[in-house]
Amino acid sequence: MSNSPTIELAMELIRRRSVTPDDAGCQELMMSRLAALGFQGESLRFGDTDNLWARKGQDGPVLAFAGHTDVVPTGPEKNWALPPFDATLRDGFLHGRGAADMKGSLAAFVTACERFVARYPEHRGSIALLITSDEEGPAKGGTVKVVETLEARNEKIDWCLIGEPSSTELVGDVIKNGRRGSLHGYLTVHGVQGHVAYPHLAENPVHTAAPALTALSTQHWDSGNEFFPPTTFQITRIESGTGSNIIPGEMLVHFNFRYCTENTAESLAERVSEILDDHKLNYDLEWNLSGRPFLTDRGALVSATQDAIRQVTGRETELSTSGGTSDGRFIAPTGAQVVELGPINATIHKVDECVKAEDLDTLSDIYEQILVQLLA
Amino acid sequence: MSNSPTIELAMELIRRRSVTPDDAGCQELMMSRLAALGFQGESLRFGDTDNLWARKGQDGPVLAFAGHTDVVPTGPEKNWALPPFDATLRDGFLHGRGAADMKGSLAAFVTACERFVARYPEHRGSIALLITSDEEGPAKGGTVKVVETLEARNEKIDWCLIGEPSSTELVGDVIKNGRRGSLHGYLTVHGVQGHVAYPHLAENPVHTAAPALTALSTQHWDSGNEFFPPTTFQITRIESGTGSNIIPGEMLVHFNFRYCTENTAESLAERVSEILDDHKLNYDLEWNLSGRPFLTDRGALVSATQDAIRQVTGRETELSTSGGTSDGRFIAPTGAQVVELGPINATIHKVDECVKAEDLDTLSDIYEQILVQLLA
Repeated sequence: MSNSPTIELAMELIRRRSVTPDDAGCQELMMSRLAALGFQGESLRFGDTDNLWARKGQDGPVLAFAGHTDVVPTGPEKNWALPPFDATLRDGFLHGRGAADMKGSLAAFVTACERFVARYPEHRGSIALLITSDEEGPAKGGTVKVVETLEARNEKIDWCLIGEPSSTELVGDVIKNGRRGSLHGYLTVHGVQGHVAYPHLAENPVHTAAPALTALSTQHWDSGNEFFPPTTFQITRIESGTGSNIIPGEMLVHFNFRYCTENTAESLAERVSEILDDHKLNYDLEWNLSGRPFLTDRGALVSATQDAIRQVTGRETELSTSGGTSDGRFIAPTGAQVVELGPINATIHKVDECVKAEDLDTLSDIYEQILVQLLA
Repeated sequence: MSNSPTIELAMELIRRRSVTPDDAGCQELMMSRLAALGFQGESLRFGDTDNLWARKGQDGPVLAFAGHTDVVPTGPEKNWALPPFDATLRDGFLHGRGAADMKGSLAAFVTACERFVARYPEHRGSIALLITSDEEGPAKGGTVKVVETLEARNEKIDWCLIGEPSSTELVGDVIKNGRRGSLHGYLTVHGVQGHVAYPHLAENPVHTAAPALTALSTQHWDSGNEFFPPTTFQITRIESGTGSNIIPGEMLVHFNFRYCTENTAESLAERVSEILDDHKLNYDLEWNLSGRPFLTDRGALVSATQDAIRQVTGRETELSTSGGTSDGRFIAPTGAQVVELGPINATIHKVDECVKAEDLDTLSDIYEQILVQLLA
């Protein structure tokens, strides 16, 4: 029995060693297939990052499939049961780095487009693909830059389907219709350095800050809402002191908020400052907003995705906003509806990453059905 | 006007660059002077450390002057107003590294012995000098080893006068009749590492430990006593976390107790464990006892020192146990009475270390008078 076109293409993509930020020819391979369907391709390179913007059609509405060709490093390849770039099919599973995150989705994008265009050569609107080679890395020259380019020429995405592996047990059981925001804080608490034998001449910042850290780590920031879990606060780094008989002069504390739409970066920053001031700390505080929260609560894309999953699999899907952030944070602010749907995420970023081969065919069918719902 | 013998000898010692653990010939110079008085010298080298045990007399009681020839590093010499190893006399002050800590005292030891032996050639008991070249460093091959050697052959010190710079405003205004203990703790708090986006799957050791650190840093350990200030606790190092989106798996906390005779290393360790257990922490805890507290509360040496200071300067002296630890921690456990008396400590371990030249003559007179009180 020969493999399906989706699995064949996924295998070809996995065999390209596209560790961030290398594309390793993946986009060219995808584009050669899309060009045959009438897509216009545009290669956009920013710094070390290759991006592809491919579009079929001139009119709106625009449904864009978004994803990335880069994969995270394998670690020592000897730890893998099967070589990570061989793309081995075994016992119904496709093995390899990127099988689930997200070369399987990329292959399903392409084959869904191929079948849809064959069935509906005169479809309405436009189909697009927005592909980057730096989603897993700093993400400075990737999706964010493509979105800027599109916005500069007033080219609009109405619906964006991101192929991130959203499923947990069965394909389509969970889709992401938003993500929490991520806000980093860098706190320096100032004290007065001194010798441990003379504490009255010093002020230990670890001592003065400990109650404030307790207050921050036990604070109730909000209760979440229908779409989001409550905002969470985590200290990610703490550092103070060097010598064994020296009272430290200052302490560094790095922390991160994953926050929902019940708070803003500004409201959280204000409350942190209030808590630090209440504890009469002498401090400096800097912020880095990694991504604001975004949400596609209702609308055509969510409905079409839910309907497509139901038609192909018979499943009711769960809307979720959990997990880390995604490139959706760059696309949602343009006003696009954004949904993430991809394969089961159990093995992503791990050794022996793999995906059930038939799940990729199911995924391709769902993507095709979404195209039918929105552009047929 | 020519310089006094004490100042001349102090200058000769300062010109020897005896940065820890180098003795740079200081002990040989001292011994050449002591040998002329009838002292028997014994060079004891342990590892990189030179030690001198010099004794005049066979009988008890034994009064030992103790001190060190090594000095702390100068830092960049260009930061000094006068070259640190030139031993410059200017405006009545002797400048140089070690002028106060403690080559001035060493010179005063020798000249006090010279005058005393000239006056009392048939004095009772024995006079000794216990000199090391590693008091400022790890102190592993110094006084502790000499004391072991003496104990092994049952050679006993009754009274030990350490030349550490004890004075604050005027020579002899403060003597140390004990020191606090120093106890180091090394705490590892265990949590469960994880991604900040999934805090329910992790346990942040910084969060779980913050209330315990507050409890430790605000704890009342004791109220001190007639001779000692209250026990103090200081966190000297805290470290946890590396990545910006990772909940740390463990946290290191180093801390130090300076403790008085109202507690013991064992009682403090027990109370720390109780506090950590009360906060239900998962932890490992290791201890390093740097020095137990020691005290010479009353007795012949304290009285003789107080009398000598009164006779030479007219001053009443204050007994103190404050400050860091000293080599007295190695000598006191043998049962010796231990007192520290030396010049003003305002400039020790700093650039432009210096001492008032006439203070060294006063100090030599006091040391001589102590010899008179105890051995004439």
